[in-house]
Amino acid sequence: MEETFVPFRGIKNDLKGRLLCYKQDWTSGFKAGFRILAPTTYIFFASAIPVISFGEQLERDTNGSLTAVQTLASTSICGIIHSIFGGHPLLILGVAEPTVLMYMFMFNFAKNRQDLGQELFLAWTGWVCVWTAVLLFLLAVLGACSIINRFTRIAGELFGLLIAVLFMQQAIRGATDEFRLPEREDHDQTALLPSWRFGNGMFALVLSFGLLITALRSRKARSWRYGAGWLRGFIADYGVPCMVLVWTAVSYIPANHVPSGIPRRLFSPNPWSPGAYSNWTVIKDMPNVPLIYIFGAFVPATMIAVLYYFDHSVASQLAQQKEFNLKKPSSFHYDLLLLGVLVILCGLIGIPPSNGVIPQSPMHTKSLATLKHQLLHNKLISTARRSISKNSSLSELYSSMQEAYNQMQTPLVYEASTSLGLRELKESTVQLATSTGNINAPIDESIFDLEKDIDDLLPIEVKEQRVSNLLQALMVGCCLAAMPLLKKIPTSVLWGYFAFMAIESLPGNQFWERILLLFTAPSRRYKVLEEYHATFVETVPFKAIATFTLFQMAYLLLCFGITWIPIAGVLFPLLIMLLVPVRQYVLPKLFKGVHLQDLDAAEYEEATATRLPFDAHHGSQEVILDIDSREVLDDIITRSRGEIRHVHSPKLTSSTPSSLDDIKPAYSPRMPRRTHSPHVSKLEMDQSS
Amino acid sequence: MEETFVPFRGIKNDLKGRLLCYKQDWTSGFKAGFRILAPTTYIFFASAIPVISFGEQLERDTNGSLTAVQTLASTSICGIIHSIFGGHPLLILGVAEPTVLMYMFMFNFAKNRQDLGQELFLAWTGWVCVWTAVLLFLLAVLGACSIINRFTRIAGELFGLLIAVLFMQQAIRGATDEFRLPEREDHDQTALLPSWRFGNGMFALVLSFGLLITALRSRKARSWRYGAGWLRGFIADYGVPCMVLVWTAVSYIPANHVPSGIPRRLFSPNPWSPGAYSNWTVIKDMPNVPLIYIFGAFVPATMIAVLYYFDHSVASQLAQQKEFNLKKPSSFHYDLLLLGVLVILCGLIGIPPSNGVIPQSPMHTKSLATLKHQLLHNKLISTARRSISKNSSLSELYSSMQEAYNQMQTPLVYEASTSLGLRELKESTVQLATSTGNINAPIDESIFDLEKDIDDLLPIEVKEQRVSNLLQALMVGCCLAAMPLLKKIPTSVLWGYFAFMAIESLPGNQFWERILLLFTAPSRRYKVLEEYHATFVETVPFKAIATFTLFQMAYLLLCFGITWIPIAGVLFPLLIMLLVPVRQYVLPKLFKGVHLQDLDAAEYEEATATRLPFDAHHGSQEVILDIDSREVLDDIITRSRGEIRHVHSPKLTSSTPSSLDDIKPAYSPRMPRRTHSPHVSKLEMDQSS
Repeated sequence: MEETFVPFRGIKNDLKGRLLCYKQDWTSGFKAGFRILAPTTYIFFASAIPVISFGEQLERDTNGSLTAVQTLASTSICGIIHSIFGGHPLLILGVAEPTVLMYMFMFNFAKNRQDLGQELFLAWTGWVCVWTAVLLFLLAVLGACSIINRFTRIAGELFGLLIAVLFMQQAIRGATDEFRLPEREDHDQTALLPSWRFGNGMFALVLSFGLLITALRSRKARSWRYGAGWLRGFIADYGVPCMVLVWTAVSYIPANHVPSGIPRRLFSPNPWSPGAYSNWTVIKDMPNVPLIYIFGAFVPATMIAVLYYFDHSVASQLAQQKEFNLKKPSSFHYDLLLLGVLVILCGLIGIPPSNGVIPQSPMHTKSLATLKHQLLHNKLISTARRSISKNSSLSELYSSMQEAYNQMQTPLVYEASTSLGLRELKESTVQLATSTGNINAPIDESIFDLEKDIDDLLPIEVKEQRVSNLLQALMVGCCLAAMPLLKKIPTSVLWGYFAFMAIESLPGNQFWERILLLFTAPSRRYKVLEEYHATFVETVPFKAIATFTLFQMAYLLLCFGITWIPIAGVLFPLLIMLLVPVRQYVLPKLFKGVHLQDLDAAEYEEATATRLPFDAHHGSQEVILDIDSREVLDDIITRSRGEIRHVHSPKLTSSTPSSLDDIKPAYSPRMPRRTHSPHVSKLEMDQSS
Repeated sequence: MEETFVPFRGIKNDLKGRLLCYKQDWTSGFKAGFRILAPTTYIFFASAIPVISFGEQLERDTNGSLTAVQTLASTSICGIIHSIFGGHPLLILGVAEPTVLMYMFMFNFAKNRQDLGQELFLAWTGWVCVWTAVLLFLLAVLGACSIINRFTRIAGELFGLLIAVLFMQQAIRGATDEFRLPEREDHDQTALLPSWRFGNGMFALVLSFGLLITALRSRKARSWRYGAGWLRGFIADYGVPCMVLVWTAVSYIPANHVPSGIPRRLFSPNPWSPGAYSNWTVIKDMPNVPLIYIFGAFVPATMIAVLYYFDHSVASQLAQQKEFNLKKPSSFHYDLLLLGVLVILCGLIGIPPSNGVIPQSPMHTKSLATLKHQLLHNKLISTARRSISKNSSLSELYSSMQEAYNQMQTPLVYEASTSLGLRELKESTVQLATSTGNINAPIDESIFDLEKDIDDLLPIEVKEQRVSNLLQALMVGCCLAAMPLLKKIPTSVLWGYFAFMAIESLPGNQFWERILLLFTAPSRRYKVLEEYHATFVETVPFKAIATFTLFQMAYLLLCFGITWIPIAGVLFPLLIMLLVPVRQYVLPKLFKGVHLQDLDAAEYEEATATRLPFDAHHGSQEVILDIDSREVLDDIITRSRGEIRHVHSPKLTSSTPSSLDDIKPAYSPRMPRRTHSPHVSKLEMDQSS
């Protein structure tokens, strides 16, 4: 993306690009049929559960001014609007932890002012939102997002880890609070006697850890050895929501032996109960806010604008990582503009605004990559079967498959790499057929192991559409109606889910991998290289890696620490943004350029000539998948984030990346079709000869 | 072992063989130094914890006639005697679950007889022990153990799984009992109010699962990526006992907020408290038992004799599996004779007798294999370092290492395969040196990566000695003195430990692997072949495997079911013994001979000519270890139990078993020295050329 600051140019470009594929965004979504429900449900839960829980947190922190009703409403309204009118449809919007923190800081400020207080708190935040929106408009119009390339990995990953730490903090705090007296409830209940509180706390630990462990396991179901394929697929797709149901059911097992209130469950007013509306009319109170506070609102507004500018863009960036091989264009500028509109809307109806969220947005893309893979897989299998039954030769088979493949392609392709995946298939199959000497003979399954070979050769592609985003936002809206049902979920299950989200967001975060590297025995460091394609392990001296990582950790702790400071905590977004100039101007003085480039590639530092030719082939080449590719798909996407340069060998033909091979050696009793990286193969030949 | 039934011949042979190495049994143990403590502690905990818990169970079931004091005393006394005077020093003795069941059946019988009752129960069991001992003497003298070859895998593994099921049953029963009112205690305690009981139960779940999960993880510490090597080794060796300490410490965390008695802890009288002695003088009461019961004691005695004959022999057999590559002879006949002596001794002092236990006995051998490996490793490394520092050539290095290796060998070697492991080393190193063209040049570490290469090439060998067995028995004895400390362990930690033992005993049990295979998706069955060397997956049709496994499962359920029947349960050892003739005469009619041979190799069915030459090379060939061999050692021993025939390729030189390679691909940046199985290599060469 060029760095242009001509007003409106970025927005115009974004709109142009997205309008071209707008219709296709809808049609392709509907064409996917009921299968779209897998990513939708997955993201719905990942989106709704934290939002409900943030609502609980806000209720406590704002003395009831804001509850789960407001956070759910904001997430749903903003989600619906963004999925229809937004630029990038893979971006998931929601009320995020930083927003909750900002609202907490603002409430703590407002409640002690005599001429503001709790009554005018929401009206005042309305003003904050107005100012925030103005700032966001300015940023969008002036093309601030074109410097998005400067948000290198160091900033994005630090922010990602900060979110993970905040999630984990919430999980731990929530679980320990289960042993304590809750603040709001009547303390005379039986359930709050010390003896029952102890039981409640222990039960909460069982439920939280139960959810956490089973949810983590179920995500890996595709690689289980047991159970039929469809069952494993179902568990991997829907396992986490299922586990929420299962552990909620478990929480009712001792119901006859414990007083009501054990375990503690979600607490939230129903949206139709009296008083729940009061804040929808906050606009009436806005003129009553004293003038000084109207202008004073500019201070938190700046922070929120900085935060949203950063958070929204980084979430969008992470949802569009190169490894996902997206075909449709980005839309940073226009989305920021729309975010401004959403913020003002939320402000005026007295609900906390939503913005692009991490880790849900990349999770969304990832789940759609799995979906697209399944669709392509099924289509090609059926085409190939039909072809084989007609006794076609290999070249006929290939052309019919190529045709089917092209049918599945997005018509709006910006790169010329349409069918690289299938060309791979042709080459490797032809090669094999030649070696066994039957290139034009009718195909039998000994040359062409359908299920496996097709899986092996499909590139990662994402089902880019708007339907899943719209549906999940609608489902979040339905939660408002389903509040009585939601209240059956024990809070402890939520804490487990928080921990699950925190842990799920870690793999693929290179900052995290580097922290682990610090604790890795020197003799095993090569394993990091092997498993995460982390080439920096080879190219950068360990001391430089360690220094860089310790610096980043210290910065993370600083950011985390500042959120604990009562009102100055409002400044934490600044600290994160500050990392961008620190990376650009300070770090190059402390580290060698080459090392820095390996640890935290910044495009503005790179020679474009050496990078571009690689990038063009990049996605379709790197993502050729091994054996049961749907199984490794989850890993590959996160594992190889941006770390693929050194892995590639110059030859392109039919070689799955060697490192994948090393991780999951493909043992195929019928026809192992894999090559090794040159140096390994050479040595093997030496020995076997 | 020849099947001879000439009286005393078996015992004589055993004694002859073991006396030859008796001195070495002690000297080599002491030479190992403090490192012997790792296997000792490991086995001590594996031995003591179940015994303590069986004591608890017995106390409940026998109304206090027998307690943990008696079970610990029996385990310790029998262990000490066996380790000094016993034949096979790797066999661990202890009070086992089947013994506890038999005593429970006997107590239920005795307590309702007017002329027997609880007072004469121990005296009566004294008579049972006398009869049992007589039967065991007869069996030993007449050479009953020479038919041990007929105890094929099917019987041994079914028994192993039955023990695992009984352990798991105890774990589940124990954990659920934590929610219930205990039988023996004063019901007015605060801790027994419904509210606290609920908390206690939930706390118990946390502690049990905490122990189970952390113990299972810690056993795998050697393959962790994090932490220094010594730390990982320490955790793998001592992690389980450490976890018992850790979770005991955790159980004290809420001490200030809960009444005493939460969580429940071990209950046992101190051995020095009055009344604890009463049963030591049970011999005085024995003449008071009515004559009819003295003779009636013959019935349970038969069952116990059958049980002990089977259990003791199978435990000894499992501790001496071929894969362990033991150098010293077996001693089935003499050990059975000694067991008779121990049974009479225990009977006369009114404690339940001990016999050879599963899974502790094979666990013992396994931990000693790890120890021997470490010792060999260190010795060879230091020799090689010294050699290299003297600038010796490769052949000098080899001869000095060969010398060191020979020094470490047991002087009493029955097979001629002393240094096969090192010959391997020489060949592969020479091969590499030749290929790089510097055979007589001084060695630098680029050819000879000490740490790794030596590990790669060491065969599995077991430190066969008596010290660890004696020490662990003495430590069990010390538990009697440490009873006040032991009482600090929460019972829930015990239940977790039971579940841990049950799960630890599963891998390597082919019966278990086959049960899992039934639930494995057809497309993934090859993974079983790959991971467990389970060649039957390839050679036997799935239907035959399934039928065989279902038959075995039904038999297991029958055995398990019969233990639930009040007094007839006493017959369950018969059912297990019955499996031996069933295997020999019934199964061959239901399954094809070849399939049966693959599923359950019986030596008496095999042509000796084809088998023997293989067996001779067998151990040292199969167990050449991959990369970090200490890490895979745990797996390899259990994984490949008896399943190695098809894995071997005809060439012996420098080829690590291909399947190991497939499991844990060795990525060595410096010099990958591995070959693949021929068909894979061929294809790789096809492709890389």
